[in-house]
Amino acid sequence: MLKCLRCGRTYEGFKIMCECGGVLEYIGEREGSFKGLLREEFLDVRRYLSFLPLKEEFLPKLTLPITPILGRKIEGVNVFFKLEYLMPSGSFKDRGTYVTLAKLKEEGIREVTLDSSGNAALSLALFAKSEGIHAHIFIPKHTSEGKKRLLKLLEAEVHEVEGSRMEVHERARSFREGIYISHWYNPYFIEGTKTTAYEVYEQIGNVDYALVPTGSGTLFLGLYKGFKDLEALEGARIPRMIAVQGRGYESLCKRSKEKSRLAEGIAIPEPPRREQMLKALKESNGACVSVGDEEIAEAIKELISMGLLVEPTSATAYAAFKFLLEEGYFEKGTKVLIPLTGSGLKSV
Amino acid sequence: MLKCLRCGRTYEGFKIMCECGGVLEYIGEREGSFKGLLREEFLDVRRYLSFLPLKEEFLPKLTLPITPILGRKIEGVNVFFKLEYLMPSGSFKDRGTYVTLAKLKEEGIREVTLDSSGNAALSLALFAKSEGIHAHIFIPKHTSEGKKRLLKLLEAEVHEVEGSRMEVHERARSFREGIYISHWYNPYFIEGTKTTAYEVYEQIGNVDYALVPTGSGTLFLGLYKGFKDLEALEGARIPRMIAVQGRGYESLCKRSKEKSRLAEGIAIPEPPRREQMLKALKESNGACVSVGDEEIAEAIKELISMGLLVEPTSATAYAAFKFLLEEGYFEKGTKVLIPLTGSGLKSV
Repeated sequence: MLKCLRCGRTYEGFKIMCECGGVLEYIGEREGSFKGLLREEFLDVRRYLSFLPLKEEFLPKLTLPITPILGRKIEGVNVFFKLEYLMPSGSFKDRGTYVTLAKLKEEGIREVTLDSSGNAALSLALFAKSEGIHAHIFIPKHTSEGKKRLLKLLEAEVHEVEGSRMEVHERARSFREGIYISHWYNPYFIEGTKTTAYEVYEQIGNVDYALVPTGSGTLFLGLYKGFKDLEALEGARIPRMIAVQGRGYESLCKRSKEKSRLAEGIAIPEPPRREQMLKALKESNGACVSVGDEEIAEAIKELISMGLLVEPTSATAYAAFKFLLEEGYFEKGTKVLIPLTGSGLKSV
Repeated sequence: MLKCLRCGRTYEGFKIMCECGGVLEYIGEREGSFKGLLREEFLDVRRYLSFLPLKEEFLPKLTLPITPILGRKIEGVNVFFKLEYLMPSGSFKDRGTYVTLAKLKEEGIREVTLDSSGNAALSLALFAKSEGIHAHIFIPKHTSEGKKRLLKLLEAEVHEVEGSRMEVHERARSFREGIYISHWYNPYFIEGTKTTAYEVYEQIGNVDYALVPTGSGTLFLGLYKGFKDLEALEGARIPRMIAVQGRGYESLCKRSKEKSRLAEGIAIPEPPRREQMLKALKESNGACVSVGDEEIAEAIKELISMGLLVEPTSATAYAAFKFLLEEGYFEKGTKVLIPLTGSGLKSV
């Protein structure tokens, strides 16, 4: 069942956005233990099929790996980097796209529309191409040539829009040819990203903090939802959720005047799921931290020296970690999760 | 124990190449069942630790995912693409590098030399940087700027050599500053790549054919070794090993006059492990197939349309599959494994 977080209306069928314009959350019930529900015969995302609101016969053919974790002790704190960039399209977005595609197949939808300037677009284009679904992608005109080339290679229909990110969004929303499935709204997307939490729990058990690059909130909310499931099923601990944002684009903490250029993947000043994120921050006793380009650049360098080839937006969470570490925010021995969201191979 | 495949001499300690110049093979003994030896608490490469000749305390911090498999039925044949490109450095080479690094750490070696023009170099540079080991990388002068930039970003010491690939090899071999660990010789490298076979067996059971891009033979021989282990432990079936080579660079089948430009990753006309590969071909009742640029280009296009973003060398195996399919080589219902070796994100 889908429930609107604004007006409370519920829907049984497929829906991306509430009639009232509010955002929807998928609400499911599960009985049993986490371990008992695992599909242990699978060593990929299908391991968590029992937790996903989809029918097995509609699964995309392209499946997703369980991403590895790199553990490092940094000044007495146990940091766990989760390599979310080792996905078919090079970013964590594939988790959300995977579940979304299964729903589209179930509904028989053959034409969709998305606005994005980066990873979400590439992820959709890849899975859509793989399943023979036609994808309209709305992007800002100033999107890099490399990204445009990749989208065209995947035969997405690219619509370039002159104007701001919000103008691109408006144009896509009012486009009438394909079903609009923006990940900013799409509740199935979060059903996919929540699998990250399940993997983390299997790989390293409970963590104390999760530092997450947060723009539209797809990963932040997915992780939180996954951890809440684990609490309900296993009595697992919900980590303190730390939303990391780019300077000048903060939606959850005070807006800076300075504008980050490097955190482009999370430069979303008015995310539709803002209220939902604030609630997660509050419930998990979390916080919002924003970082600037100097710290991000330094963080990328350090990540690369650890063998982690990531794109700038991914480095924001590590930059925030370094800042909080200096502030004495973490106790010694604390377990901190840092998902690394996008591959650096794309930007080389 | 390491055994020379040319003179038969054995070594107990660390060694890359036999004193006689021959290639070494690691020979180990294992008792128990495959399932019993699995380290099921791990959902990454450490799952196969019992099969690897290394000490757990020296494992690289950066670990490797179990790569997913995409199944497609193509004209009645069950094709299984294994996404080996979803590795930290973007290629299957990370498997070999992983085991090699563990051995280097065990030996306390801090400075190494490798010659490569592509994926092996990037893989070593990444892991070496991550473990604080200094890497000398010898590359042909005409190597692409993108690759050079990436190697420098990882602070590898890049030595550019004017001349052919074989001249680069000679220069690296005679270089005296770092231990020469060429994957063309390095027996530990194959210990890493053999894990691919274990994963395949867990994921889809027996396969009938394995089509493998084959230059120096690191993946071809690793897969074959892994399948042989599975036969010994489980009575599993060894697939027919099909070596796929680029036109003009064949070492296992008749040399063509035409020269492939796209199969650059396997353009190795005189691989040191040639005899070992011929033996594997014969023992497994396999074959060698060579493909040209036109077929490779067509194969890349088809792979991308399935959502598989790979580099040209990876597409050779699929091109060979298409050729053999047309020849009526495969029976209906046959299971064919095609490892996809390198990421296309690097070349975009």
